Amino acid sequence: MSRELAFVKGHGTGNDFVLVPDLDGRRDLSAQQVRWLCDRHAGIGGDGVLRVVRTEHVPDYAELAGLAEFFMDYRNADGSVAEMCGNGARVFTRYLDAAGLLTSTEVVIATRGGLRSVTLHDDGTITVDMGHATTPRVRALPHVVVGEHSWPATGVLVPNPHAVAVVDDLADAGDLRSAPVVEPAAVFPEGVNVEFVVERGERHVAMRVHERGVGETRSCGTGACAVAWAARRRAEPDTAGETTWQVDVPGGTVHVTESTEGSLLLRGPAELVARGTALVPVDQPA
Amino acid sequence: MSRELAFVKGHGTGNDFVLVPDLDGRRDLSAQQVRWLCDRHAGIGGDGVLRVVRTEHVPDYAELAGLAEFFMDYRNADGSVAEMCGNGARVFTRYLDAAGLLTSTEVVIATRGGLRSVTLHDDGTITVDMGHATTPRVRALPHVVVGEHSWPATGVLVPNPHAVAVVDDLADAGDLRSAPVVEPAAVFPEGVNVEFVVERGERHVAMRVHERGVGETRSCGTGACAVAWAARRRAEPDTAGETTWQVDVPGGTVHVTESTEGSLLLRGPAELVARGTALVPVDQPA
Repeated sequence: MSRELAFVKGHGTGNDFVLVPDLDGRRDLSAQQVRWLCDRHAGIGGDGVLRVVRTEHVPDYAELAGLAEFFMDYRNADGSVAEMCGNGARVFTRYLDAAGLLTSTEVVIATRGGLRSVTLHDDGTITVDMGHATTPRVRALPHVVVGEHSWPATGVLVPNPHAVAVVDDLADAGDLRSAPVVEPAAVFPEGVNVEFVVERGERHVAMRVHERGVGETRSCGTGACAVAWAARRRAEPDTAGETTWQVDVPGGTVHVTESTEGSLLLRGPAELVARGTALVPVDQPA
Repeated sequence: MSRELAFVKGHGTGNDFVLVPDLDGRRDLSAQQVRWLCDRHAGIGGDGVLRVVRTEHVPDYAELAGLAEFFMDYRNADGSVAEMCGNGARVFTRYLDAAGLLTSTEVVIATRGGLRSVTLHDDGTITVDMGHATTPRVRALPHVVVGEHSWPATGVLVPNPHAVAVVDDLADAGDLRSAPVVEPAAVFPEGVNVEFVVERGERHVAMRVHERGVGETRSCGTGACAVAWAARRRAEPDTAGETTWQVDVPGGTVHVTESTEGSLLLRGPAELVARGTALVPVDQPA
């Protein structure tokens, strides 16, 4: 026996999500249901779930309804609640557009990480304003260690923590089946995502990422922002004004623009790949 | 831009498939489409594709239409054509039943590996007649080697090749990120699937499997049959008549009955988890 649940699946540079349209806020997905939806073998499969709900129906956030009509209820694959996800926000907005729910190519969406401005472009890409980057409070220079290799790293908060290491070859990071060691640990008391970066050309880098608690992934939106932020400060510390960096990730390419005001604008693709009905086992509480 | 393709997703003990209903045989899925459907991040996600087509519409197999109304067109995730898959056959039959295409709980399906008898049980499990097991032509006793460990193994053809090694602890097989070495290689000229087995009780074993060309998987139907076949000959070589062994795989439990005539009957669960429309990119040829 199973219960039917409408879903859409989509991805941004290989970071994939199960979207659950729930405009009236009638489905408070359980952690168990989220885990089932994200299960790549026994469920639908995804890096996370994006419940699409009108902000007015979200307790604690309803006051934002006048500023942002839709709330992105993002859950990690383990069922935990998450604040924000740049790739997810693009896929979320692609869904809103495909469902005819947008009246403009400029939209503000509500997330647990705050309001986010999103722009749909004619070329099919979508830009999300990811806010400002800051540096960790502990000023010690972090190092990233993988096997015999060690690299100095730049600590960046977007606002989740990142350690960005410039390497000679992305293969030097090895298979990333275990988390790189980042020292001193005091710089990142809550753990850290680690990016390995190589230069590819003018304002153009490529990266691999090890996401804390997950492993190597095909893409990480805040990671790309951290990498572009660090690359600019490394390559052209004296440049003023807006700059845009191309960041190649294993799952595709994104562009990160740092505005004159310091906002990081993450631009990239977002594709919907399926829509349908999930047959959620009834032993999963509703 | 994309083209719409109706699909169903299902799994048997964690071995998962994208089913493409195509009763009139109008869709000859390209290898590229199959790879996209099986892509777990940028597509739907699955270990393989099962196209559901009436046998009369399948070139080279239409003559079987009088014996088996439906043909299981099974493709591996890499787009290649495959003969048979025990877990897939259960999921295929579950779909036929759910779609109202069956008139009996006993059905014969056509596959590239020949006709297969399938039985639907009241408890929700499905049995597939996997045929007979045989032994490799080269009689040398194979050994399976993982790191410092080495075990004698039993070679079994179901009819795909298996090396079954009884171990003290399933953890002794390590992380199975690379293929175990099986010597002498001449026993299995086309490569081999490797099963590691521990005894759990009377006619009850647990296994892990490394599938050739794939890696460790949650379940392997022919592997479970090979394990039960070898376990019986090891534990009770003199027993005549029908025996049933419980085989725990990482993704669940199956039962293998060896009939008096020597047929291996694989019984286990099969669940449909979603149905919907895939939005296949148009740069994928139809």
